[in-house]
Parts: sequence; structure tokens; C-alpha cells
Amino acid sequence: MKIPYGGDYNPEQWPVSVWDDDYRLFDAAHIDTLTVGVFTWALTQPGPDTYDFSVLDAVVARASAEGRQICLATGTGAHPPWLAKAHPEVTRTDFEGREHRYGQRHNSCPSSPVFRQLSVALAGRIAERYAGNPAIVAWHVGNEYGGACYCTSCAAGFREWLHQRYQDLPTLNAAWYTTFWSHTFTDWDEIEPPNALTEHWRGPDHTAFPGITLDYRRFMSDAMLTNFRDEKAAIRAFDPHTPVTTNFMGLYQPIDYHRWAADLDFVSWDNYPPDDRSAARMALAHDLMRGLKDGQPFWLMEQTPSVTACRDVNPLKRPGVMRLWSWQAVAHGADAVLFFQMRAGRGAGEKYHGAVIGHAGRSDTRVFQEVAALGAELAALGTATLGGRTPARVALLFDWDSWWALEISDGPSRLVRYLDVVQDYHRAVWSLGADLDVIPVTAPLDAYDVVVAPALHMIKGDLADRLAAVATRGGSVITTFLSGRVDENDNAFLADVPGPLKTLLGVRVDEWDAREESFVNPVTAGSSVLPARLVFELVIPESAEVAGTYGEDFYAGTAAVTRNRHGAGDAWYVGTALDPAPIVRQVLERHDLLGPFADVPDVETATRVTPDGARLLFVLNHGAAPADLPGIDGTDLLTGEHLRAGEQLRLAPNGVLLLRVSPEPGDRPPRG
Amino acid sequence: MKIPYGGDYNPEQWPVSVWDDDYRLFDAAHIDTLTVGVFTWALTQPGPDTYDFSVLDAVVARASAEGRQICLATGTGAHPPWLAKAHPEVTRTDFEGREHRYGQRHNSCPSSPVFRQLSVALAGRIAERYAGNPAIVAWHVGNEYGGACYCTSCAAGFREWLHQRYQDLPTLNAAWYTTFWSHTFTDWDEIEPPNALTEHWRGPDHTAFPGITLDYRRFMSDAMLTNFRDEKAAIRAFDPHTPVTTNFMGLYQPIDYHRWAADLDFVSWDNYPPDDRSAARMALAHDLMRGLKDGQPFWLMEQTPSVTACRDVNPLKRPGVMRLWSWQAVAHGADAVLFFQMRAGRGAGEKYHGAVIGHAGRSDTRVFQEVAALGAELAALGTATLGGRTPARVALLFDWDSWWALEISDGPSRLVRYLDVVQDYHRAVWSLGADLDVIPVTAPLDAYDVVVAPALHMIKGDLADRLAAVATRGGSVITTFLSGRVDENDNAFLADVPGPLKTLLGVRVDEWDAREESFVNPVTAGSSVLPARLVFELVIPESAEVAGTYGEDFYAGTAAVTRNRHGAGDAWYVGTALDPAPIVRQVLERHDLLGPFADVPDVETATRVTPDGARLLFVLNHGAAPADLPGIDGTDLLTGEHLRAGEQLRLAPNGVLLLRVSPEPGDRPPRG
Amino acid sequence: MKIPYGGDYNPEQWPVSVWDDDYRLFDAAHIDTLTVGVFTWALTQPGPDTYDFSVLDAVVARASAEGRQICLATGTGAHPPWLAKAHPEVTRTDFEGREHRYGQRHNSCPSSPVFRQLSVALAGRIAERYAGNPAIVAWHVGNEYGGACYCTSCAAGFREWLHQRYQDLPTLNAAWYTTFWSHTFTDWDEIEPPNALTEHWRGPDHTAFPGITLDYRRFMSDAMLTNFRDEKAAIRAFDPHTPVTTNFMGLYQPIDYHRWAADLDFVSWDNYPPDDRSAARMALAHDLMRGLKDGQPFWLMEQTPSVTACRDVNPLKRPGVMRLWSWQAVAHGADAVLFFQMRAGRGAGEKYHGAVIGHAGRSDTRVFQEVAALGAELAALGTATLGGRTPARVALLFDWDSWWALEISDGPSRLVRYLDVVQDYHRAVWSLGADLDVIPVTAPLDAYDVVVAPALHMIKGDLADRLAAVATRGGSVITTFLSGRVDENDNAFLADVPGPLKTLLGVRVDEWDAREESFVNPVTAGSSVLPARLVFELVIPESAEVAGTYGEDFYAGTAAVTRNRHGAGDAWYVGTALDPAPIVRQVLERHDLLGPFADVPDVETATRVTPDGARLLFVLNHGAAPADLPGIDGTDLLTGEHLRAGEQLRLAPNGVLLLRVSPEPGDRPPRG
Repeated sequence: MKIPYGGDYNPEQWPVSVWDDDYRLFDAAHIDTLTVGVFTWALTQPGPDTYDFSVLDAVVARASAEGRQICLATGTGAHPPWLAKAHPEVTRTDFEGREHRYGQRHNSCPSSPVFRQLSVALAGRIAERYAGNPAIVAWHVGNEYGGACYCTSCAAGFREWLHQRYQDLPTLNAAWYTTFWSHTFTDWDEIEPPNALTEHWRGPDHTAFPGITLDYRRFMSDAMLTNFRDEKAAIRAFDPHTPVTTNFMGLYQPIDYHRWAADLDFVSWDNYPPDDRSAARMALAHDLMRGLKDGQPFWLMEQTPSVTACRDVNPLKRPGVMRLWSWQAVAHGADAVLFFQMRAGRGAGEKYHGAVIGHAGRSDTRVFQEVAALGAELAALGTATLGGRTPARVALLFDWDSWWALEISDGPSRLVRYLDVVQDYHRAVWSLGADLDVIPVTAPLDAYDVVVAPALHMIKGDLADRLAAVATRGGSVITTFLSGRVDENDNAFLADVPGPLKTLLGVRVDEWDAREESFVNPVTAGSSVLPARLVFELVIPESAEVAGTYGEDFYAGTAAVTRNRHGAGDAWYVGTALDPAPIVRQVLERHDLLGPFADVPDVETATRVTPDGARLLFVLNHGAAPADLPGIDGTDLLTGEHLRAGEQLRLAPNGVLLLRVSPEPGDRPPRG
Repeated sequence: MKIPYGGDYNPEQWPVSVWDDDYRLFDAAHIDTLTVGVFTWALTQPGPDTYDFSVLDAVVARASAEGRQICLATGTGAHPPWLAKAHPEVTRTDFEGREHRYGQRHNSCPSSPVFRQLSVALAGRIAERYAGNPAIVAWHVGNEYGGACYCTSCAAGFREWLHQRYQDLPTLNAAWYTTFWSHTFTDWDEIEPPNALTEHWRGPDHTAFPGITLDYRRFMSDAMLTNFRDEKAAIRAFDPHTPVTTNFMGLYQPIDYHRWAADLDFVSWDNYPPDDRSAARMALAHDLMRGLKDGQPFWLMEQTPSVTACRDVNPLKRPGVMRLWSWQAVAHGADAVLFFQMRAGRGAGEKYHGAVIGHAGRSDTRVFQEVAALGAELAALGTATLGGRTPARVALLFDWDSWWALEISDGPSRLVRYLDVVQDYHRAVWSLGADLDVIPVTAPLDAYDVVVAPALHMIKGDLADRLAAVATRGGSVITTFLSGRVDENDNAFLADVPGPLKTLLGVRVDEWDAREESFVNPVTAGSSVLPARLVFELVIPESAEVAGTYGEDFYAGTAAVTRNRHGAGDAWYVGTALDPAPIVRQVLERHDLLGPFADVPDVETATRVTPDGARLLFVLNHGAAPADLPGIDGTDLLTGEHLRAGEQLRLAPNGVLLLRVSPEPGDRPPRG
Repeated sequence: MKIPYGGDYNPEQWPVSVWDDDYRLFDAAHIDTLTVGVFTWALTQPGPDTYDFSVLDAVVARASAEGRQICLATGTGAHPPWLAKAHPEVTRTDFEGREHRYGQRHNSCPSSPVFRQLSVALAGRIAERYAGNPAIVAWHVGNEYGGACYCTSCAAGFREWLHQRYQDLPTLNAAWYTTFWSHTFTDWDEIEPPNALTEHWRGPDHTAFPGITLDYRRFMSDAMLTNFRDEKAAIRAFDPHTPVTTNFMGLYQPIDYHRWAADLDFVSWDNYPPDDRSAARMALAHDLMRGLKDGQPFWLMEQTPSVTACRDVNPLKRPGVMRLWSWQAVAHGADAVLFFQMRAGRGAGEKYHGAVIGHAGRSDTRVFQEVAALGAELAALGTATLGGRTPARVALLFDWDSWWALEISDGPSRLVRYLDVVQDYHRAVWSLGADLDVIPVTAPLDAYDVVVAPALHMIKGDLADRLAAVATRGGSVITTFLSGRVDENDNAFLADVPGPLKTLLGVRVDEWDAREESFVNPVTAGSSVLPARLVFELVIPESAEVAGTYGEDFYAGTAAVTRNRHGAGDAWYVGTALDPAPIVRQVLERHDLLGPFADVPDVETATRVTPDGARLLFVLNHGAAPADLPGIDGTDLLTGEHLRAGEQLRLAPNGVLLLRVSPEPGDRPPRG
């Protein structure tokens, strides 16, 4: 057992003669795990009543024979042309209300009866055929679920979903506040999917009825989850144990992964950062993915070894970067490191997407060499990291409902983006070296000393009480502007802002200003002067003390940041968009949570505690310059070298340390 | 009698218990006028054959019992879901040719037979039920008419409208110049609404046949006017006297308010400026609205007390700004000051739109306090301003046809925007303190010493003669580049530019240059050097004298500005886009029209002469600094203070004076 | 015989009284050639079974009687309203999948059976009627063919076209690489036109299957070519000899003019540069148009005498510019100089488009005067330039397939635009005064010393061998990054980059970086440091020598430019986007191809050798300052002045010399 290494492999695109080359090169690169069958529907079911597994049989047989582990896909991520021709309803209707015809991928309407029936049948056939093959270590359902459909099948599905949720129309009308603009529904069939032909203008974020739009997003996420569940059930009929997953996409808005996570046996995700300066963003995404199933390790299902193709500009991963980012994934909880793709396709849309093996089939390219070197490194490491859990004492609350509600809201500012606020706070904690879990608002908060809740727009259930309990028992809560504004239906609380959080925070907000990006109001907080932007809440302290004030405009001197002592702990409110690092540092210091290299720029640390109790400290240098680190006791599992606290370390750019260090009293035993 | 104060009130969104709070707070804020029922169609007609006035009865009864004035809406600004479901034709087809389904508001096709029948029936029922209630001071038909529809009903309506206008196809073909591009129509049914599927590309301003597009805009404005007229007629069947209005939107392109004004008993409009530096723009809009009905006072039907919600960035009205802008409205002719809205809705698209009463129901917010203070001030003022007319001796011609024709024209420059040119000239007059009327091109010009006609692209009827008459009798006319180009069908005059204005202006223009925004050609006019941009007409003086010349390019030394003596007066031509303040000042000085504070920056003045002959001078400081004003004799009606000519005054930022000053010989008696 | 001079003339828009004025002014301006009938379908066929040639008869008769040459159009560039009403299928379905209704021009579906039948019938009727009129010097079919249609008729046409091309589905599936994303087609009817409803997102350049999109572009170009051919055949039935053309649009992507050229008797094109700094771009376009038919002279069918109308900003042609650009056209091979348009239309979309005669009908405008002066100059010149050929020893390969394939490709960079790369190389050669032919990749290369192939993305047929032969016999080949990547189906070569060009170039490319526009990597090549941008191929020399290296990033020191000796010649590879002037200069010098004024900025030269062996050197000063030129022996045909090598010349801005110089040994005899 070791970290599975390999990735997407599409031998069906090639003559068998090429397969020989492939396995020779896989051997050279220590590739042991292959994801196969992802886009094979047209191959395995060439017609409505015809199945043909000959190619997939050969693919699976060869991989098994070569001793590889297989992640076997059901192949339903793209439907075949004949299906769209025979049943046009399987294709989607887009946000503009246009019925699509055959093309692209991820092209099936999740509510289409024909799609649902045939995709599940195919998943069942594949499970029936290949279940029991010991090479199969995971089932891969569909592919990168996402997007949305607005067809009549989905409209019907939406109405059923609403009926389940609201039971009766008066309840629905109240939830959607339909007295506004004469929208009272008197029959379920009057309800339309919210799109460019109904409630929207200027795109998916501009809606006349955010309650409708919010529910449609929930419905659409659930409709695709139903697709996943149905395929999984079909697999389980033949294979009760092998884990089933699908590949998530990290910080992806359309799907509420928190609603999905329980149905996956393990989480896996595809990491395609938007640029090569994304270390903090990837850390957030990894932490979010790990947090989906209460800290359980996940698979890095896809990453490119070199370049993407779909971006306007597709920069090359510099030497060492692919390795660095692979280790970052492991540091944050990955138990597999996989690529898209093993061999570059000749044609179609991804022919320029990076691959382990390029069009010329060479093994002497820089990219292949780096893949092989990492393969060797992982092989040498063996099981050391597997099953490790992150002993975080800081939690960051992430909430798709707040994301959606905030960004579909008219007012106060379209310039506020949920991920920006979340990233500001995640980055602040991360750069100070404190491990943190990114968790749903429904997760238990007992294990955390610090809970950060950026832009917690929507407050659902008992969340306010649970946050208060964190402070009561001595912890710290940090939240921000635009928190505590709406209930689960996106209706404003009929109370002072920040609604249910008011007592905890000890403040009230009667009014707020919004300004263009270029406008800056300096906030003085302790010895820091922080440029604040976008939204400026005029915070009225009630029981809270002022921790930061605006410097300009008619509200100069008004509180912008407050701290409220609550029980044995405290609760911070940051009423505007600013870099919260100094505030976060103050909170982390109080709880003694700064990392060992908190003051070394560009160096990331992350901790995992393995099932056998070993504490592993990953140290990663994302900077362009060597980093000089204070000494630390530990053993580098990648080199076998022993480090000592007294001896300063120099870590090269893109350098990685994987240190086994002494367990700490605070280490939590692995869960689940 | 005093200035009505209050605004939109939607108690149907709330339990009756909240109503008690509302009226307590209305009392505290001196709110005496409530606009009710604006979006109540779904409530009052829950099905095709069912009317239910129970809630509206209670709303009206309570308001009446509480002694408030009521502006009662017909509620047809948004149709109910059941109507769209039963009759899909009531929804609009958009510019892209997409048939919309149920959603949003202002969503009815103006040509839909079903919509027309049911909306008029509803208006009639409401009028029948509530006519005679003495609390009702006005009827409010529909809401913010606007947008456009391109459905088959509208296509049929368009053809009828065209038949009325042109009588026969040869006349229509000539008007539209259809020999061009093989467009000769041989049957009325061949005519299509001009949109993205027919004559347009790149949106509503890019058309292959501006004549068709121009007529469609006229038709669409007329089609909605018919909706208004029909509802008004239904009201008049039960209430012959109470005034009927609808709320206009100021500088709103799609509706030609000049075609509508005669049908409204008084004009009302909603003032939502795009930013907080809009004093000049709002002044223009107020002047335009006042000019719709020959100077008759209007209602400020809506403004926000604090923030909007629909903008990307919704800045807060600073302390004092709501009061300042309310007085600006009164200064320009408003006889009512109303807000949207009394109480903030909990949900849907406007939950963050500002309101007198916020979600928490507080009366101790800054916003409520400012609303209440203004309420007290208006109550104390009483009738002093009501019915006052503006004694303007300057007129600015505003013409929707020119606006449309100019902006749908291919060539010379898409960068020239009609409102920009109009604003440049309005601002120049306004900032120099001369009262001005913004009037249609059909209005009598006899009363004016100066007539400004910016970008008067289209010359209709006897306009050229009437402008010449202004100069003949000693007045001044100012017009600009791109004037005098087309006739009412948007066909070029077969004559030298500026067409019918040539004799008056004494110039000819054979060619013109156009350049990107960043290109500047300095024009020397007297002692001023004015940066000119966008379009550069090479003006050839015939009888005119040169008043400004270009400084650069191959046309350096060519005339850019000219003055032609004509009769006892003169006519100016400005052949390029520049800040005309120095030119306008010269003209105003000649007619002794500079205001008392013409040289004090950021201070606006406006005059009203009330029916009893009192002359009121409003002085408003829009600047961020106190303004030092030369002394003036008068009594400030807001404070009772007496001012004297010898004593310099300091006016605080956002400060307002409402001075009763001595009548002037030039004061015109109020009209009509 | 002289250069035909005149242009588009639409007397059908005017009463006959205006025609008298027209001919008076034509005489004054030496206008001898009129293009008539371009948009007359509605006029000549006012109904399905009705033809009416009375107006066109009069137009033709008058022009003939006035002694003008006629370019007679078939008038099918826009269909009449009645046709669209009777047969909605004649209008196009756009990229968004929207079925258009009647409007605009160039509005016919090329696959529509009704359109095809009626347009050909009309062309035949016109030919039948007017063939034999000696005034007719050319037939003008349709107008500016272009755009695309995606309707069901086109879908059917596409399937037929594919059937012809691929014969069977397995071949098609292989060509399109359909195993990717489960796209295997099992029935021809499953194939959809690639558009926003099928394979595309974010517009026409973003496709999931570039192979499909590429074939659709080929098909659409061919479908319109079929329209042209069919009309031409109908003409030929009545007129076997008079040349037939249609007006091309220069650097126009949607139509592959190389596929069309053989069917035109001569090439003509419309020159509307995007701005007034377009000398190099126009030179490229002229060279491309001349290269379509192996160097045969072309007609400049349209240019504006003054301004365009369709641009956002339509700058005026400065004094002298229209003349300069007209001579530039002649210098590059034009045998006609024509304008759009003779008289400005009164209305519709082009009323502000420049014309020889403006709305006022004046002859004393600057524009008319310049037109008349050029007319006189051309009349005086007579036949001197007619039939002249360009004796180019440099060829630049231009390839619509590479243009399409490069720009629909996902990866490596959307910022690379084919025309930019082509222009960089064309401009380098052009500014150094070497005549060059822009030719298709299928053209013989024997006559050229230097062959430049920028961004030669696709390698078809024996092209690689023919390029190698150029070097073998002592010539030089220059190619660039992103060349040699794909075969004719857009499938990557399964070989090292640059594929079939590898041996010739002696390099290999394993990886490439892409960066944002703002990122610059300096390339040192000889004594030049050239800022490189966008794409950076890491060039590995095999047999080549390094001629330039990157200066920064991890690939600093890596080869960016190489030269490979091959046979008696050499082959250059430029692996990144930079200004190639220093490299091109080195190559031209080696072949002694620098022009006489290579070092004088802004001065263009171009050569024509006439059928009688005269060598004409055109010298054009595009700069804003006078140019001092080294002396040269020759006679200026425009002035009759004799120039001598020893006497330096000063050429005014916009100045033109047309020098008869001594023939050179290298002059090739005119072909064809």
C-alpha cells in the first residue's frame, strides 16, 4: 500500500500497439493506478439495445494483468450522439432557455427520464461485469457534475422538489415573499425555472426573486445528486464494498458539495488552479474538500502534469511546481495523486492539454522526468502518510447557501464576492501556519478554539447558538460584514443586523455604505492601518469594544472592527472588506496557534497525524527564493535526514520537507 | 394643504400588527401621503373570474381612518402568475426574439388583447370600488412604463400603427428608404419588428434601417400610452375629477414622455440618480419633467431615503443629502416629496433597498431621523411653495426623436451620446444660475430670450422657422454639431448641413472628422481654449462670424464655433463636443440672465413664482465645503431669518435656503 | 483603355432628374465605370412570378448612352421582403441557433432550395436581358459573400458535404477523433452544425470538437461558393466571355478565398481598413488578393472617398490619403479604382457613409475635388500600369485552414491571433522594400528565393517536402511557433513538434509556455534584443544552430530562434512572438532583396512589370513628414519628370511617385 499514483487513461483512443508503449512508460514512472472508462458510453452502448464491452474488457484486462489499480468509471459524463438524436429531451436547456442539441459533454438533463434510466442501466451493467475484479479500487460515477438545466423535465422536477419542501403554496409564497411584485402562486404549475426568460436579467446572479433562484440551485444540485445516488445504487447491487466516488471541482459554486458528501464513500477532486500563483487558493480548496467528510482523506483525482488547454492563456508548470503542488495536496489530506492524463489525445478539444506522455511518446521530456521522479519518491515513501488526519484547532465555516444568497442579492454591492472574503480569512490563518478545517455550518464546533465565519450571510437552524457556545467556553469567533442577514429562505431577519448573531457580537448595524473598487477608507486597528473597500458597515457597539475605526468620510471614527467578550471567550466583528491578517494573528496568538514558520513568507506548513499517531509536518516553499527557517526537531521522510531545533534550515524554491515530528498533546485522535 | 410627504406603502406584505407600528412611525415622521396598491394584481384578482378586495379594502380603510392622503394604484405594473399560465401571450418577447415566461414585473405585452382587457377591467373595478373616498388624492396607473416587446401581437399592432401613419406602402417605402438593400415592402404583413432577428446586430442601437427602428420606438411608446389611456378611461367612468398620473423615470429613453404628457393630469417621476454626484443631472431631469406639461408642478413620486439596491454598487446618501435633494426637487417644481418605500420588504429583489422604516422597525436610526426632520420642516413650511412656476427666460429643446435618431445612426461616431451633449449645455446654463425650461420642440418659444438646442439632429415641422423667429426678435439660439441633419423619417436633408437651420446659422458643413475618446483638438474661442472631442465638423462660415477655431490637425484654423447675427438677435453654432460654459456665459450675459451666485461653485439656485406672486429663490449647496455667498435681500422661509444684501452669507455643505425675495418685472404670471 | 474609375451607383434610389446632375458630376470627375444593380432584387422581381426590369433598363441604358463602362450586378446580395415572407427558410439561422426573419442584407441561407433556385433564375434573366451590351465590362455576382447559417437545410447540406469528403462514418469518426468525449457517430443524421447549441461555448472560436468546426467552416465557404458558381453558370448561358467576379473583403476569415479564386475570372475586393494607420495591413490585403489568382491584377471594387459609417468611430480620410491609398492599390496590382459610392443615400444604414457626391450635390467640396483630381491623373496616365505583374522573389504562405485551426484551438493561448503573426512577418518584408507574393500553401514555390510561413499550424499534402525543396536549392524558409502541429483534420502529428517540418528546421519542441499579454521575455538574436510575448516554445536544436535565446525565466538561455542549414539554403524557426524585422532583414540581405529605400521609414515601394516589359516602381510616403530618398534613375509617369541616381529626392507626406525604371534581369515575364 502506498499513495496511488497515475490518473486518467484512455487507451480506447489508440491502437493496441500503443498500449505496450504506455505500460513501459508507466513502469518507468511508477504509475500504479489508472482511471479508465470516463467517456466510453458511445463505446459500451453503441445503440439503444446494444452493449459492447469488448474494448473496455481489453482495457480492464490489460490493466489488471499489468498489476495496476483501476478506478473504473461508469462513463455517463457524456451521452452518445444516438441518444440525443433518438431522445432530444436528454440534452439540456440552458439559462437562456435554449434547447441544446447534441454536443460537448456533461450534456445530459439530470431530470430526463430517458437519461436517468439509461445511465443507471449502464452503471449497473458495468458493475455487474467488472465487480469482483480485485484490481478495481474505486468506482468513478459520471464526471465533474455541474452546470444546470432549465427544461420542462427540470421544471416538473423543481415543482416536485418544492412540493416536498414546502408542502403547500401558502408556505411557499411566504418563503419566496411573493406578495412583492404580485407573484402569489395559486397553482404549482405556474412556477417556472428562474432563468433569462423568467426572473433573471444580466445573467444567473441577477434575479427578481432570490428565494426562487436559491431554491432552484438547491434543486439542481439535488437533481444531480440523485443521478449520482442512482448510479451508485446500481453499482451496489453488484458490489457492496468497493468505494464509490465522483470527482468534485473544489471551489465550484453550482454544486453544494456539503449536500453530496455523505453519499460519496470518499471525496475526490480535480485541481486546476486559475494561475500559477494559487498556493493559498489551492490550500483553501484542499481544506474544503477534506472538510466535506469530517476530515477523511481525499483523492487528488486530476491535475495536469504541465499545462491546461481550456484557459485563454495556459502557462506551463515550472520545474518543481508539479511536485510541490502534489505534496501540497498530500499535506492537506490527499491519499492519492493522479493526473489528467496519461497520454495526450491527438484531436478534439484537449489535444493541447498536458499529459504524462506527449504526442511524440517520449520519456526524455522534462515533464515525463518530473512525473517519474515524483513516482519514485512516492514509491519510496510507502504508507507513511496514508490515513493521516489534520489536527486543526481552527475552523472556517463555508456555506454554499450563503455563497449563493450573497451573490444573487441586489444590494449592497455586486463587487463583494463570497470567495474573496472567504479567501481573505483562510489565507490569513493559513499564512500564519495554523492548520484549519473548512467545514459546513452544520458541523460540530466543539473541537475548535477559533471559528472563522466570513460573510456568513445566511443563518440557519441553531447555528447562532452553536457559535455563541464557542465563545462561552473560551473560544474565539470571527465574523464579518454581511453576516447574519437572512434566514434560510433569504428573507431578512426582522431585527437589528447582524440578526441572530447580535448578542454574541454585541453590536448593531443600522446602515452601510458601498463604494467602487477604487475607493479606500483606511481602518485603524491597533497599530495597523488597513485599507478597507467595497462595503462599509457603520458598526454601533452595544456591549462590544471598538477594535478598529474608519479613518475617513462622514463616518470617520465610527467602529469598523469590534471585539465582544462573551463567556470565557470573545467574538470579533469586521464590518468591512480588509486584509484581516493582523486581527487573525491577534486571535491565533491568544490561542497559541501560530505555526512554527509563521513569520517566514511564502512558506506553507500543514500537519497530518497518522492512524499510528505519527505527527507529520509538511513544509513547502512557494516562494521564488530560498527560505531560511528556524531549526526544528524532526526527521525528513523524503530524505531520511534528521533535523535539529538548533540548526537553521534553508529550503529551496519549490522545496518540500515531510518531517516526522513529536506528537503534541493537542493532537486529536483520528476520527471516523 | 402642504407638500404631500410619504410614499410607497405595501402593508399587504405584513401582518396587521405591523400596521400599528407603521402609523405610529408615520406620525413621528409627519408622513401624510401613502401610495398603495402598486403590485396588488395577484391579490385583488387571484383568478380569471375572481376578485378579492378584502386586503386592499383594509389598507385603504386604515389609511383613510388615520387621516392620510392616498395615491391609489391600479396595480397593473406586474401581472399575476395565473394570468401568464392561462395566457402565455401576455408575457413579452424580448429584443432577442425570445418569448418570455412568467417572471419579474413590467412584464406584460402592451399589445396583448388579454392583458389589455383584464388590466382595464381591474382598473375599472378599483375605481368603481374606491372612487369617492375623499382620502384619495390621485390615481396611480401601472408603474414605471417602459421596456419593449417584439411579439406577434406587437408586430400586428405595429403594422396597424404604420398603416395609420403612412396610409399606403409607397409612402412607407419612401419614408424608410427601402430601395436601399432591396427592402421594398409589397405587403404590410412583410413588415417585422426590428430586433436581433431582423434588422439589428450588436443590440438595439445598431440597425440596418433606422427609419424602421425609429418608428418601432414611436409605436412602442404609443402602445403603452394606449394602455395608460385605457386604464385612465376606466377610472374616469367612475371618478371624473381626481387626477390620474403614472410615475415617469426622468431621462428615460424608451418612452417619449412628450407624447404622453397631455394624457396625465399631472406628471410624477421617480428620481434614482446613478451616483451621488448627480446634482446637475437631477436638475436636468426635474426641468425636463416640469417641462412636459408646460411648467406645471410635478410630484416627486419616488426617491430612496438612503440606498438603492439594483445598482452594482449602492452608495449611501450622506447625512443631509436626502434633505438637499428633496429641496432640489421642490426648487425645480415638485409639489410632493415621496419615498420608495415606507417599510423595507423582508424578501425578494428589493429587500436591501432603503426605506423609511428598516427591518428592525427602529425610529432611532439616522435615516429615520432625517426623514422625520424633513417631515417637520415641510409641515412647518405649509403651502408656501405649492403651485409655484419657474420664471425661466432660457429654454432647452429636448427631443426623443433626435435622441433615438442620433444614437441608432451608423456614423459619424457611436461615442456621441445625446444625453451627454444635452447635459453639457444644461449644466452650463444651470451652473450660471439661470432658470431654464426643458421643453419639447413643438413648444412655443415666444417667452424665451435664449433657446439652446443641443444635438438637434432631427428637424420636424416648422421648427426651423420658429428658431429663426427667436433670433429675429432679438433672442439668441445656440445649437451644435449633428443638428439639422435629418427629417422626421430620419432621411438626410438634400441640402447643405445644417439643413433647414443653415440660413439662421449662416454656416455650411461639408465634412466632419471623428476620433477616439482620447483624441483632443483644442478649440480657441475668445480667451478660452476648450478641449474638443469625438466629432469635429469643419464649419464653413457663410454669413456667420468665427467665434472659435480648431488648433490642430489638417483643419487647424478652421471654424469650430460661429455666431451669426440674425434680425435683432443671433445664432450660435458649436461644431464639436466641448464644454460650452464660456460660450453660454457670453450669451446669458448679453441677455442679463446670470444668476446671483453664478460665480460660486457648487451652489445651485432655482426660482419659483407662486400663484400669489411671491418669488421664491432656492439656494442649495451641493459642495463639500461651506459656500460664501454675496449678500441678498430676502426672508428664509425655513428659518424665518431675514437676510440683507450687504451681509455675506455662509451656506453649509448640503445647506438649503428658501428665500422669499422681491418679485421681478420679468416674472411671468403662472400659466394654465 | 485606362484604369477603370468610378464605383457603386444606385440611381434607382433617385428621381431621374438627379441622374442628370450625376452624369454632369461624373464628367467633372473623369468617372468612367459604374457598378449598378447591387441591391435591386426587390426592384427587378417584385413578386414570385413577376419580373420588372424597367428601372434597371433605364439605368443601364443611360450609363451606356453616357459612354460609361458598366459592372452589372445580379442583385442577389439581399433578398426581398416578399421572399422571406413566402419562404421563411430563405433567411438564416444564426450561430446562437435563432431563426432570423426578414431584415438586413446578406441574409440568405446558402443551402435554401428556394433561394438557390430564385437567385440563379434572377441572374439568368439579367444575363439574358443585358448580355451583349458592349458597355458591360464585368458581371458582379451577389455582394460580399460571408457570414454563416446553421439551419436545417445547412445541416443537411453539411451531412452531404461530409459524406462526399469521408465516404463512411468510421473515417469521419477517426478524422474528428470522436472517441474523445463519447462522440462516436453511428448515423449521419446525428451530426449537428457546430454552434452555441451544440459544440460551442463563448462564441465561434470555442468548440469542443475543432475538427467538426473546421469542417463546418469549409462547408459553409463551399456552400456560398456553390451559390456563386450557380449564378455564374446562369450568366455563362447567355454571355460566354465577359468576366465574372464578386467582391471579396481582403483579410476576411469566414470565406476561404483560395477555394474560390479559380471560379472568378478576376478578383475584386473592397478595402475598408479599420483605421487610418493601416498602410501595412492594406499592403498585406492587396498582396493576398493579388495572390489568389497567381498574381493576376485585381480590381479595387470599393473604397470610401472619405468616411465609413459602420464603425464606432469613423475618421475622415485626410487630404491626400484617398489618392495615396488608391495608388497603393495600383502599386500592389489593382487594375481598377472604384468607390463606394457615387452619391450618398438619403436614408437607411449608410446615409453617413462617404460618397463622391454628398447630400447637397456639390462639386466644390474637398472630397469631390480630390476625387476629380485623381480622375484626371488616372486619365492622363492611360494604360501604363494595366496588366502589370509583381516580380516578387519572396512568398508568404497564407492559409485559411491554419487561421481557423489555430484560432479555434484550446491551448496554448487564445491571445495568439493568426493575422497578427502574419502581419508581423509581412510587415517586416514589406517595410524593407522587398516585393512579396502572398500565396496559398498549394502554390508552386519554385520562383521564390525566400518563403515565409508564419504560424503554419496545419501541414497538408506535400507541403513539407516543397518547403524543404526551397532550402535545398539555396532558398530560405522562415517559419514560427505553432507551426507543424496538426494534419488536415486538426489532429496532432504523432511526432516531435514541428512535425513534418522537423527535418527541415533541425529542431524539436517538447514544451511551451504561455503568458499574459503584459509578460515580456527578451530574446537576444545577434545584436538585437527583441521583446517576446504570448507563447514561448522551448526550442531544442538538433541539427540547427541557435540564432536567438530567451533572456529570462527558467528557460533563460534556451533557444528561441534557430537557423538550420539545409541543402544550399537554410530554414529559420522563430519559437515565440516577436518583431522579426532583424531576422527577416538578415535573410533578405543574403538574397540581395532589400528595396532601394529599405532604410527610409514610412516609405513603401512596390514594383509592377507590365506586359510590354516596363518596370514600374511605385514610391509612397505614408509618413506625416517629408521623406528624403536616395536618388534613383527613372521617369515619374505622373509628372513626366526625369529623376537621376545622383540627386536626392524629397517626397511630401502622402506623396506618390510612379517611376518607370530600368528592367532588371530578375524580372519574371508575366504569367497566365
